[in-house]
Amino acid sequence: MAGPLTGIVVLDLGQVYSGPYCALLLAHLGARIIKVEPPPAGEPLRSRGESEASGESFNFQLLNGGKESLILDLKDAAGLDAFRQLAQRADVLVENFAPGTTARLGIDYPAVSGINPRIVYASVKAFAADSVSSGLRGMDLTVQASSGVMSVNGYPDGPPLRCGPSLVDFLGGAHLAMGILAALFERSVTGRGQSIEVALQDAVIPTLASNLSGWLTDPSAPERTGNRHGGMLESPYNTYPAADGWVSVLCLTEAQWRGLCELIGRPDLRDDKELATSAGRVARMHMIDEVVGSWIIERTAAEAAEALQRAGVPAAKIATLGQLFSGEMARSSPMIQRSDEAGGDATYTFGSPVRLGNHPPRRSGPVPSLGQHTAAILESLSQGGADGR
Amino acid sequence: MAGPLTGIVVLDLGQVYSGPYCALLLAHLGARIIKVEPPPAGEPLRSRGESEASGESFNFQLLNGGKESLILDLKDAAGLDAFRQLAQRADVLVENFAPGTTARLGIDYPAVSGINPRIVYASVKAFAADSVSSGLRGMDLTVQASSGVMSVNGYPDGPPLRCGPSLVDFLGGAHLAMGILAALFERSVTGRGQSIEVALQDAVIPTLASNLSGWLTDPSAPERTGNRHGGMLESPYNTYPAADGWVSVLCLTEAQWRGLCELIGRPDLRDDKELATSAGRVARMHMIDEVVGSWIIERTAAEAAEALQRAGVPAAKIATLGQLFSGEMARSSPMIQRSDEAGGDATYTFGSPVRLGNHPPRRSGPVPSLGQHTAAILESLSQGGADGR
Repeated sequence: MAGPLTGIVVLDLGQVYSGPYCALLLAHLGARIIKVEPPPAGEPLRSRGESEASGESFNFQLLNGGKESLILDLKDAAGLDAFRQLAQRADVLVENFAPGTTARLGIDYPAVSGINPRIVYASVKAFAADSVSSGLRGMDLTVQASSGVMSVNGYPDGPPLRCGPSLVDFLGGAHLAMGILAALFERSVTGRGQSIEVALQDAVIPTLASNLSGWLTDPSAPERTGNRHGGMLESPYNTYPAADGWVSVLCLTEAQWRGLCELIGRPDLRDDKELATSAGRVARMHMIDEVVGSWIIERTAAEAAEALQRAGVPAAKIATLGQLFSGEMARSSPMIQRSDEAGGDATYTFGSPVRLGNHPPRRSGPVPSLGQHTAAILESLSQGGADGR
Repeated sequence: MAGPLTGIVVLDLGQVYSGPYCALLLAHLGARIIKVEPPPAGEPLRSRGESEASGESFNFQLLNGGKESLILDLKDAAGLDAFRQLAQRADVLVENFAPGTTARLGIDYPAVSGINPRIVYASVKAFAADSVSSGLRGMDLTVQASSGVMSVNGYPDGPPLRCGPSLVDFLGGAHLAMGILAALFERSVTGRGQSIEVALQDAVIPTLASNLSGWLTDPSAPERTGNRHGGMLESPYNTYPAADGWVSVLCLTEAQWRGLCELIGRPDLRDDKELATSAGRVARMHMIDEVVGSWIIERTAAEAAEALQRAGVPAAKIATLGQLFSGEMARSSPMIQRSDEAGGDATYTFGSPVRLGNHPPRRSGPVPSLGQHTAAILESLSQGGADGR
């Protein structure tokens, strides 16, 4: 079979990142994804930022290649009826509406499980139903603020700073996909579905492990540590200017530290017993940063990173999006898949980070235009629901 | 049953964050986790940063509550033999060793699947085997550098900056857990296991969706946008000083924008047709930031965020770790579970962000001391492998 989820039908009611990313991960596992979009313009990401003349926004393309697009007005009786027929036949429903929306539409878990007890009904919300923030709205930025993420990003003497990547939304989507698979696994034994919920705030909290450990160790220390370790518990752990860029370096193990000392010609530091533990190195962090920094600044970033890697030390030069997207990543990674469609512009869709030994990486299908599959899906329903079964 | 994975046995060879977090997620789904650690000191995280007298490091506690600890020297014939007996009976193996280590130890996928074809063998590596960086070492910091994450974090006029949270490692662990569940689901049909691999670099790339979209729209724009939207494709989207802190605000939909304008007493902006699209608002981003900012600075962060939420606008005040950990989060969230053990210090372990409708959130068990379960596990092996079956 094409993937572990071959034959599984997913109704993707997702918007923007977390819900659509979850459904994209399921698509790469072989599931059929029916993206249910509202009239007249589809989900908000379709036209975000860019002119409508140029087709779907890049954001939308990245998350939605290979899905089918079905326009349904869920506020309309005929639309709701078609949705219920689909839900009766589907295996999974994914939604990340604002709190209360599915109940208002009449498609919350009690309603949908009533017509299909086998369905796995998966929701992302900003905050858990049992948290003090239950019911509040939140997207990536909001939860970066509320979770402590922004409080630990930036410089000790500067204000809180948003993390550049949308880590919150994508952690939410990945955890939701995991929950769906757990529920499908359980259903293969019990025959019953269940609801799954992931709160964005909960999904990002584990990423603060270093910061929380630092706070538990010394609650008075600055929460923002710039380029240093989030809990100030490792050294070397920093980003150093090279002759032509920057290099990030850390040593977690003693072997890595010894390898670094030998590479930079400092056997005295290698043999210094005080520096043989991370606590000992942290106590002399400024000296270590100066020693490592003065070795790196005399080399190009690529030379320094390569020599450090040969010495067994995790190190990398800092790459720009431009370098990655137009160079290495575009050529060698199945993570950003470019499709050149006849007569149209190129489109880009994310691949899956999950490689399965039994299945080759899947190429994403084309990005659906709004409502492209509406007629075919509604027709299959009227013919008794042959959709994919 | 206690969870979807009741009866599943996982060998956790993980170190630091990505592998152990994956196994912790499986534990919260009901699996039994046997953490295999090397003599004499266990995995590197046990003693990271903090003094050994105070027990396991906070980092270690957060990721390893409820697991069993088994010391095995895999470089020794007896240790390797015991490991092979365990692997024969296990359902899942999780490892995030440096490239080449499992082959050197004789426990790579070909070796282990030879003695147990049903095993799901799950690996995290820094870079995919088919990427140009294949075989290089990398941890969270390294991949933040190599993936473009650091290039998009920070200020337009400043250097690249590490993201404060360890997003790379935890995205790796969550995706790996998803892959394991997909493979277990497939095994329930085929009876066969498989290998799963997640590259940290691949797992973090989707979080750059906004940034990549911005770069595709205008490759000459700064990659770092401070507190503004990563692709400069939304406005308002920023963090504003309040009388006593900061508030993050964004409007994704027209309804949110209209709600904001009404709240701050600017019906003229609500009715301005040029501002009715995100592209139109982005073109006048500075004016919008000034209008929103001057409304927020006259209020406390809590007042402003609450009023915005009531108007339907996603907004939150920026929380510090101290506020969260000692207040709301500690009391109301099952995400950070505190155990007060008799005669010992309190320990803290992460809960799971994935809530299952059919199962209550699981409380983590105690944090295992190094080798605490060695004798019991080896004894059960010598009695014919009754471990958990």
